Amino acid sequence: MAKDKRRRPKAETPKGFRDYFGPEVTERASMLARIAEIYHAYGFEALETSAVETVEALGKFLPDVDRPNEGVFAWEEDSDWLALRYDLTAPLARVYAQHRNDLPSPYRRYQMGTVWRNEKPGPGRFRQFYQCDADTVGAPSVAADAEICAMAADVLEAIGIARGDYLLRINNRKVLNGVMEAAGVLDPSDPERFAAERGIVLRAIDKLDRLGEQGVRALLGEGRKDESGDFTRGAGLADEQAEIVLAFTEARRDTAAATLSRLSELVATSETGRAGVEELETIGTLLGAQGYDDSRVLIDPSVVRGLGYYTGPVYEAELTFEIMDEKGRPRSFGSVAGGGRYDDLVKRFTGQEVPATGISLGVDRLLAALAAKRGAATAAAGPVVVTVMDRARMGDYLAMATELRNAGIRAEVYLGNPKNFGNQLKYADKRASPIAIIQGEDEEARGVVQLKDLILGARIAESASLEEWKDQPAQKEVARGDLVAEVRAMLASRS
Amino acid sequence: MAKDKRRRPKAETPKGFRDYFGPEVTERASMLARIAEIYHAYGFEALETSAVETVEALGKFLPDVDRPNEGVFAWEEDSDWLALRYDLTAPLARVYAQHRNDLPSPYRRYQMGTVWRNEKPGPGRFRQFYQCDADTVGAPSVAADAEICAMAADVLEAIGIARGDYLLRINNRKVLNGVMEAAGVLDPSDPERFAAERGIVLRAIDKLDRLGEQGVRALLGEGRKDESGDFTRGAGLADEQAEIVLAFTEARRDTAAATLSRLSELVATSETGRAGVEELETIGTLLGAQGYDDSRVLIDPSVVRGLGYYTGPVYEAELTFEIMDEKGRPRSFGSVAGGGRYDDLVKRFTGQEVPATGISLGVDRLLAALAAKRGAATAAAGPVVVTVMDRARMGDYLAMATELRNAGIRAEVYLGNPKNFGNQLKYADKRASPIAIIQGEDEEARGVVQLKDLILGARIAESASLEEWKDQPAQKEVARGDLVAEVRAMLASRS
Repeated sequence: MAKDKRRRPKAETPKGFRDYFGPEVTERASMLARIAEIYHAYGFEALETSAVETVEALGKFLPDVDRPNEGVFAWEEDSDWLALRYDLTAPLARVYAQHRNDLPSPYRRYQMGTVWRNEKPGPGRFRQFYQCDADTVGAPSVAADAEICAMAADVLEAIGIARGDYLLRINNRKVLNGVMEAAGVLDPSDPERFAAERGIVLRAIDKLDRLGEQGVRALLGEGRKDESGDFTRGAGLADEQAEIVLAFTEARRDTAAATLSRLSELVATSETGRAGVEELETIGTLLGAQGYDDSRVLIDPSVVRGLGYYTGPVYEAELTFEIMDEKGRPRSFGSVAGGGRYDDLVKRFTGQEVPATGISLGVDRLLAALAAKRGAATAAAGPVVVTVMDRARMGDYLAMATELRNAGIRAEVYLGNPKNFGNQLKYADKRASPIAIIQGEDEEARGVVQLKDLILGARIAESASLEEWKDQPAQKEVARGDLVAEVRAMLASRS
Repeated sequence: MAKDKRRRPKAETPKGFRDYFGPEVTERASMLARIAEIYHAYGFEALETSAVETVEALGKFLPDVDRPNEGVFAWEEDSDWLALRYDLTAPLARVYAQHRNDLPSPYRRYQMGTVWRNEKPGPGRFRQFYQCDADTVGAPSVAADAEICAMAADVLEAIGIARGDYLLRINNRKVLNGVMEAAGVLDPSDPERFAAERGIVLRAIDKLDRLGEQGVRALLGEGRKDESGDFTRGAGLADEQAEIVLAFTEARRDTAAATLSRLSELVATSETGRAGVEELETIGTLLGAQGYDDSRVLIDPSVVRGLGYYTGPVYEAELTFEIMDEKGRPRSFGSVAGGGRYDDLVKRFTGQEVPATGISLGVDRLLAALAAKRGAATAAAGPVVVTVMDRARMGDYLAMATELRNAGIRAEVYLGNPKNFGNQLKYADKRASPIAIIQGEDEEARGVVQLKDLILGARIAESASLEEWKDQPAQKEVARGDLVAEVRAMLASRS
């Protein structure tokens, strides 16, 4: 003990970080691999940027964060400020500016990886998480936006979301700007004027789901007092102005043609607005030509997307099936991906405007959706466990596991202290093992092995009395030479 | 221009960091996926720890680094010092200590992921790279070491290294300690004594490949002056002592039995040494029982592994085929993986000694080996590119790409400005596209498309005159309805 006087380090992740175990890792990996296949088929190229960027290159595009370095993990290194990336879009802009002479133009790329946010951690809110993005840089045509939406629909189906269980909703910031013009909070000859008011309008519309029409109307006007009594200042619009904005959010009609016609009315006086409606019409036509109809991809004026940097089409993927919320009430699963067109991110570096559009998938949301769809039914399949009855015969037990693996069956030998056989079965249980293999002295002499069906055994233990369980009806003796065939048959009978 | 007065940020990664593009990402991903399959088959569970750890939890196990925080990227956050992980072993020790009541024992886990080292970057030496580890925690038996070696051999074959092109070399620190006892630099009754000398001996043996016997002999004795004139202090061993150490490094014989017998002679006076030889014998027997013979897994006393924390068996995987070095001379490819038994890492946290053994694969080294094996022959296959002859018919072009993708063929539409057709072909070229599809007004009227075989075209362009190239013999007109079948046939004829 004398050597252990030093205080021992705490075995903990830092606050807001966590570890992922077994199926959490492999299920995400296989979902991402499936998504990568779709991206690849569409001609998108993989990219993996460094996790560490200069603070200068990252810029300040994090939503809801105004102060420099706020929201990122940053440190000084040899008089440079470095930081962990907080999304995959800022690094893409840097990569495109850095390598633009070597990259094809347009450049379609996808990236999957971890991002870090230096935010207050909360329940289910972590400071490290996955993003999965696909973007097309250098394509001014809205065909690029249509392509991203089609691809997102394909991705959802590829990972197991059935057609009918998802909806891509598309809008256009240009239409919204047309509405702003019509409402008198955007002056095309002086784009900076009313910028603060427009910011409030944008955030108000984004809260429509949560606050309802009355709440949004209050935020468009003088402001709103919430349940806690806190007051949020409004955009100060007059009633007629607010009416125009609200009419926009309610412009969705039964068919795309009717929605577009309603939007045309609302933005008739604005050139930008008319161009935006035309773009939406083109996107709808292009998607229709490829078989993506209203039931999968829908023009919906209530989609605005919070981020300030979007300049054209914006889109959101939502899952429409119901799940139970924490209070047991059914609710629609909701948004799992979003994106849009942004034309200014590369300009920060090069001074040249480069058109770009892209989508970001919420990896954890998608995994939660797949788990909700699947239900708790499927347990992860553990390995067949070869138990150790005689320490001196370890070579024989290892050989059994090798045989099973060579036949494509996941298998391992118990490598703890073999003295207590009960511990070996407890171990197999913790490993979610379907079968334990047992060969003691007697079995070896007779050239047989015992196969213990642990899943059947567990079922019997649950349903029957201890006496019945002691008879071990879920155990079977087979010839050593039939080991692989018998294990395979036992596994097949239970799947 | 008035708005661009601010200094523009530099579009660069921080020093020592880089981005990975296309095949660099996908080839690594598919290699790691293949490795994960083997690990999984052996009953190892995936683990993904957080990239950020407390400095306290990480400890100071980085090789060749003595000062605290040296070698890691660290920063202060709310009065805690946080750091990016520098390997996957220190986080495993933290995870095992933190979750030991929930984890099976023994716990077999694998982890693949990025690690960061705050070291001076150099050519080919980056501050962020991948590691791919498999470890068994809580298994005292050397069967666990044997299993890791067998698994490493399986991994190498699974990713495409042929049997005969690799060798697992195994040694045991206990044998080395026995040799140290015999040489009088280890006193079992006072293990701290001569620790500095043993460190020098260990590092000297590790340099045998590079310095040869004479260089090592100098380092075991008074010391050695290198070509630059710099003097490295030696361990100060007398000649007879150095002889014993050197005899150990040269103890490898033609058969495992002969090597073990020679080692037994060398450590006859040491209890630890004898135990080490016995362990090596057991490992050899266990591997033999599973079909891993001397041609794949070999006992080799010259393997010592640099890291201080190993306590028992150590192992190294080396690729034995030759490659050309930068000066065009053939040399053996060398080490691609290494590991061993370490029993003290978890103890830092819990005070309890937990036996552990594991291997770390050099991901970049393995990718380089596969590339060297494959040669420059295989170019990455780009997508079929559908060109745009008539902007108004974008829907038709997108539909062609969709048809191809639905048939499993990677395909994309050109989304840049379509005005200059030459640019479209240049783009297809940059995308390494095998086929360009062309349908102008005339072709549409006649219900046909043109397929341009770009790879055949490139070959013709290389070998023939410009005149012949202009005849475009690598272009073929096919019925629109036969598009998918004809593209498939053209792709098949070239593979």
